[in-house]
Amino acid sequence: MTVGILAFVKGHGTENDFVVLPDVDGELDADLVRALCDRHAGIGADGVLAVARDGDGFFMDYRNADGSIAETCGNGIRVFARYLVEAGLSPAGVITIGTRSGPREVTVPADGGDITVDMGFASRLDDAEVSVGPASWKATGWSMGNPHLVVVDAAPIDALDLSVPPVIEPASAYPDGVNVELLEPVGPHHFRMRVHERGVGETRSCGSGACAAAVAAMDAAGERTSYVVDVLGGRLIVQWREDGGVLMTGPAVLVASGTVDVRALRGAVIRSSAG
Amino acid sequence: MTVGILAFVKGHGTENDFVVLPDVDGELDADLVRALCDRHAGIGADGVLAVARDGDGFFMDYRNADGSIAETCGNGIRVFARYLVEAGLSPAGVITIGTRSGPREVTVPADGGDITVDMGFASRLDDAEVSVGPASWKATGWSMGNPHLVVVDAAPIDALDLSVPPVIEPASAYPDGVNVELLEPVGPHHFRMRVHERGVGETRSCGSGACAAAVAAMDAAGERTSYVVDVLGGRLIVQWREDGGVLMTGPAVLVASGTVDVRALRGAVIRSSAG
Repeated sequence: MTVGILAFVKGHGTENDFVVLPDVDGELDADLVRALCDRHAGIGADGVLAVARDGDGFFMDYRNADGSIAETCGNGIRVFARYLVEAGLSPAGVITIGTRSGPREVTVPADGGDITVDMGFASRLDDAEVSVGPASWKATGWSMGNPHLVVVDAAPIDALDLSVPPVIEPASAYPDGVNVELLEPVGPHHFRMRVHERGVGETRSCGSGACAAAVAAMDAAGERTSYVVDVLGGRLIVQWREDGGVLMTGPAVLVASGTVDVRALRGAVIRSSAG
Repeated sequence: MTVGILAFVKGHGTENDFVVLPDVDGELDADLVRALCDRHAGIGADGVLAVARDGDGFFMDYRNADGSIAETCGNGIRVFARYLVEAGLSPAGVITIGTRSGPREVTVPADGGDITVDMGFASRLDDAEVSVGPASWKATGWSMGNPHLVVVDAAPIDALDLSVPPVIEPASAYPDGVNVELLEPVGPHHFRMRVHERGVGETRSCGSGACAAAVAAMDAAGERTSYVVDVLGGRLIVQWREDGGVLMTGPAVLVASGTVDVRALRGAVIRSSAG
């Protein structure tokens, strides 16, 4: 791929932040992704969203900060959709965006308001016990494509120490690890949440985690409706439809744009132009 | 100040990273600094370097990420000087840059090579004992304008746990806190270093800390010469001249440039234009 000077946009959804690359020519290097996401020697982000053409539409080539390929990301796809509309690449309204887990329908209001993403279907996983320090709770297992254990009432959650991973019993229930959501009810259809992402640690927000948490809380309450989920990085609304589909609505903010000098990035490989 | 769309450059010196603001109109708001330095909802940096005119020259208005005013910064001033030359505001060579601790002489090679900064004079402070976990050492106190305790041989330093602050005995020796440098000799005139900055934690680099550490090591060896200091974020060269002045040489990299939408920053105050 050609990389000397590369255009970028930086944005975030509930403080899950991304570098959007509108003009990647060819394959995206893992070492370029790592260099861009480095928070001191690069631009800094949780991941990269490369814009690829997909027939008449667009495909979101999403990479984690460590350079690995990921299926999709509920917070990232809102940022991606906002970029498409702000850049004039797509009109506002319903946009279908290709991802590695299939096409996703995203609704972008013309007024810059919150964006709604079709997050697919929730399915049940094994329950387990979750411990944080001296506290233990029964947790409900839910999949949103990735696995989650949800404690529907872990109040008060502010004092919990998530600097170390929660302990899962039995560990054999989730041999590949699991994301853990700890909820504190605030009022009807409204809770606060902290999340520990497997392999990462506590984060400001996790879109699939907010969906799994809301579904678990609605399931426990015997209803399918909309819940307000306050994460550390902002507010998400999760709707669980009668047909079983999950919709998530939340903000997407484009903060900065410009060009990055790829030759100045540490560890980024420069290849000669193919285009 | 007028802030809607603001030009910025992002750069780093040994991975101590900064947002350079070339076009601030009026006073720099502390809340704008905090919003820009936020690593998830903003651009992300350890501090802001605003470019101000100072007669025929330039003044570096340096702010910490928390919005507080700071005197100067040995890594930041290299990034600032690189910006002045790259932007065509100053020819390469010796540049005098105004700071809150007075004018500083900076030498910028025309070929983009490492930049040398006059760091002023080192002076002795009280010695004390430094403990990290079960290990304790006698440490030498040196000031580079700010206080440092240097352990000239704490080898092996890689296993030390600096996630908690080192313990200083007697604590009364440094009631306002102190930066701690832990050195591991590598060869003649060459050591590796880890640093714990007071009020911050372990960092990738600390320019004044590298200077204090090299001076302490040279003083212990009874010589005034040049030492190579490898910090986590890269390599610095510190020279202690016969007249007592300290020069530091190191890299400065401009990574990205563009514009930031201040209205999209969380907590940033928008004021009407005064200009």
